[in-house]
Amino acid sequence: MVNQKKITIKDIANVLNISPAAVSKALHDDPRISAKTKAEVKKVAKQLNYQPNHLASALRKGKSNLVGVIVPRTNSNFFSSVIQNIEEVLNKEGYNIIITQSNESYKKECSNIDTLLFTQVDGIIASMANETTDLAYYEKIKSKGIPLILFDRGENDLNVDYIGINDYDSSHMIVEHLINQGCKRIAHIGGYKRTRIFNNRIRGYIDAIKKHHLPLDEELLLESSLTTEDGRDKMMQLLDLKHRPDAVYVAGDYAALGALQVLNEQNIAVPNEIALVGFGNEPFTAMLTPTVSSIDQHSIEIGKQAALTFLERVKNPDYKQTLNKIILDAELIVRDSSNIKKD
Amino acid sequence: MVNQKKITIKDIANVLNISPAAVSKALHDDPRISAKTKAEVKKVAKQLNYQPNHLASALRKGKSNLVGVIVPRTNSNFFSSVIQNIEEVLNKEGYNIIITQSNESYKKECSNIDTLLFTQVDGIIASMANETTDLAYYEKIKSKGIPLILFDRGENDLNVDYIGINDYDSSHMIVEHLINQGCKRIAHIGGYKRTRIFNNRIRGYIDAIKKHHLPLDEELLLESSLTTEDGRDKMMQLLDLKHRPDAVYVAGDYAALGALQVLNEQNIAVPNEIALVGFGNEPFTAMLTPTVSSIDQHSIEIGKQAALTFLERVKNPDYKQTLNKIILDAELIVRDSSNIKKD
Repeated sequence: MVNQKKITIKDIANVLNISPAAVSKALHDDPRISAKTKAEVKKVAKQLNYQPNHLASALRKGKSNLVGVIVPRTNSNFFSSVIQNIEEVLNKEGYNIIITQSNESYKKECSNIDTLLFTQVDGIIASMANETTDLAYYEKIKSKGIPLILFDRGENDLNVDYIGINDYDSSHMIVEHLINQGCKRIAHIGGYKRTRIFNNRIRGYIDAIKKHHLPLDEELLLESSLTTEDGRDKMMQLLDLKHRPDAVYVAGDYAALGALQVLNEQNIAVPNEIALVGFGNEPFTAMLTPTVSSIDQHSIEIGKQAALTFLERVKNPDYKQTLNKIILDAELIVRDSSNIKKD
Repeated sequence: MVNQKKITIKDIANVLNISPAAVSKALHDDPRISAKTKAEVKKVAKQLNYQPNHLASALRKGKSNLVGVIVPRTNSNFFSSVIQNIEEVLNKEGYNIIITQSNESYKKECSNIDTLLFTQVDGIIASMANETTDLAYYEKIKSKGIPLILFDRGENDLNVDYIGINDYDSSHMIVEHLINQGCKRIAHIGGYKRTRIFNNRIRGYIDAIKKHHLPLDEELLLESSLTTEDGRDKMMQLLDLKHRPDAVYVAGDYAALGALQVLNEQNIAVPNEIALVGFGNEPFTAMLTPTVSSIDQHSIEIGKQAALTFLERVKNPDYKQTLNKIILDAELIVRDSSNIKKD
C-alpha cells in the first residue's frame, strides 16, 4: 500500500508564508494569534485536507486516552463480560480500550504487552495466561510509569492493584455444599497448581476435605488444562478408578462440560450417582441437561472495579502508596447437577 | 502518573562524545561505522537502559505491524473464532492484532476506527455494527491508504474486499429442509432488514416460500434484534397467532435459544409441534435439549481468508484493481430440533 504524503503544519505555513509555530498556535486557538490569521490558517488546513497527527501529539503529551486490556481469551463469558464492564466505565470518562488475547501463551502475552506499550496506552488491565510464571514483562509496564491493574489471574509478587474473587473460600463452599448433599468421596479436577487462583482452589478443596475428615485420595485430585477435551479425559480417568468418586468438582465450566458429556454418554445418573459442580457460571451451564451448578465470579463487579482503580491511579498519582486489593465473595449457584433429592 | 525521563540517542551520543547520527547508525549496524564504535554504543545503550522508541520509528516508516480488528462483540463464538484465525495467520507474518468491539453501536464503531487509526495500524479487518448505515467513517480508513477488509457484515457500496457466506442460499436451504420435514407454515424471526446479510436471509426465505407455494404471511415474518431476550418475545408473539406456525427459522442462534426456552416452558414438542432452526452454529446449539439445527458460517475459513487478503494487499499494491469477494457456501447442520421422525 502506498502511503499518501501527509500534509503537515509546515505545508500550511508555506502557503501562508508564516511560521509553523504560528500555524500550530492558530490551530489551537491561541489568543496571541489574530482572528484573521486563525481564519486563514483553518481555511488552508481544510483546503489541503490537513489532519492533525494525534499520535505525534500523544507522544509529546504522553497521553493517548487508550487503555490496553489483555485476557487469556475473549471466547469466555467471564472475560468478555469483564471487558464489557471495563469499557462501559472507561468510555464515560473519555477512554477507549483496545483488547489483546494471549491464548494462554506466555510468548503471545509478552508480544501483547509490547504492542500495547507501542500504542502508547495510558494503562493496562490484564489477566494472566496459564503459562505465565516469569513476570519480567509485567515489570516492563511498571517501569514505564503507567498503571497496571490485574484481575482474576494475578500475581501478588508484582505489587500492583488486583481485583478478584476469593477462590479459596469458593472452593471450600463447593465442598461443603457437596457434603451437605450426602457426598462422601469428592474428586477435584483442578487447574494448574502454578497459577495462583487454581492453587487457591486446590487448597480450599484440600482444607475442606480435611476439616470434614473425608478421604483425601491422591487419585481424586487431578491437575488439568481445563479445556472441554481435558475435562473429558480427566472424567474418564476418574471413572476408571477402582473406587469411583460420588461427586466431582471441576475448577472450570468448560472442563465441567466435558466431564458431563462423558457422564451422559456412559448413562451415569447426575447427580444421584455422581454429582457435578463447575466454576465460572458460564451461561451454558444453565442450558445443559442436567443444568450444572457453578460459582459466579462477579464479572460485572470485577470489570467495574478494575476500571475505577485505573481512573483513581490516573487522577491521584499520590494514591500510589496504597495498593488496591479487592477480593469479592463469590456465589454458588446450585442447579440440578448437585441437587440430590433424598428419598 | 509521572513519566520517567526517556533515554534517547542523544544521551548515548553525549556519553561517547560522538554524533547522534553515528549512534543511530551504530544501533542499526550500519557498515559505515566501525565494529569498535558499534560495540561501545551498544554497551552504553545497555548501561543507560535505552529503549528504542518504536512508535516514533513507526511514524517515520509508516509501518506499525499492527492490524486492527473491529467486531460487533467478542462474546460470540463466530466472531471470536474469526479473530482467532485472523491472529494465527497474521502472527506468523510478524503482525500483531488489536481488537475493538462496537457493541452494535455506530457511535462506538466510529470511535473504534479513530482509535485504530491513532495507533497507526497497517490495516483494518471489520464486521459492522447492526446500527451502521452511514459509511463515512469507513471512507476515512480508505482515504488513509491502508487496506480495509470487511467480513460477514459488510457493505458492497464501500468497494473493498469482503469475505462472507452466501446468506441468501443458506436461507433457501433451511426453508427447503423444513419443507422436506413436512412443515407447511414456516415463520422467520429475521434480523434488521437494513443489514445486508439479514436482508439476504429474508430474501432467501421469501423466495423459497414462494417457490414452493407456501403461505407468505406477513405475521410470520418478524424483524428482531436477535438477542436471546428478543428471541423469547418474538416466539411468544408467534405463539399468540390464531394460526400458529409449524416451524420457526431464526436468523441467529442466541435468538433461537430464547425461542427454544419459550417452547420448552410451554411444553410445546420440538420438533413435532414446532420445528426450529437457528443460524451461526454456536457451540451451545449442540448442548441444548433438544439440540438445535443451525447454519455453520465457516468462521475458520473466513478468518484465514480475511488475513490472507490483508497480506496480499500489503505485499502487492498493484493488486488494488481487482477486489476480493469471497463468498463461501454455508453448511446446514441438522440436529434434533428439526429432525421430524415420521410415523
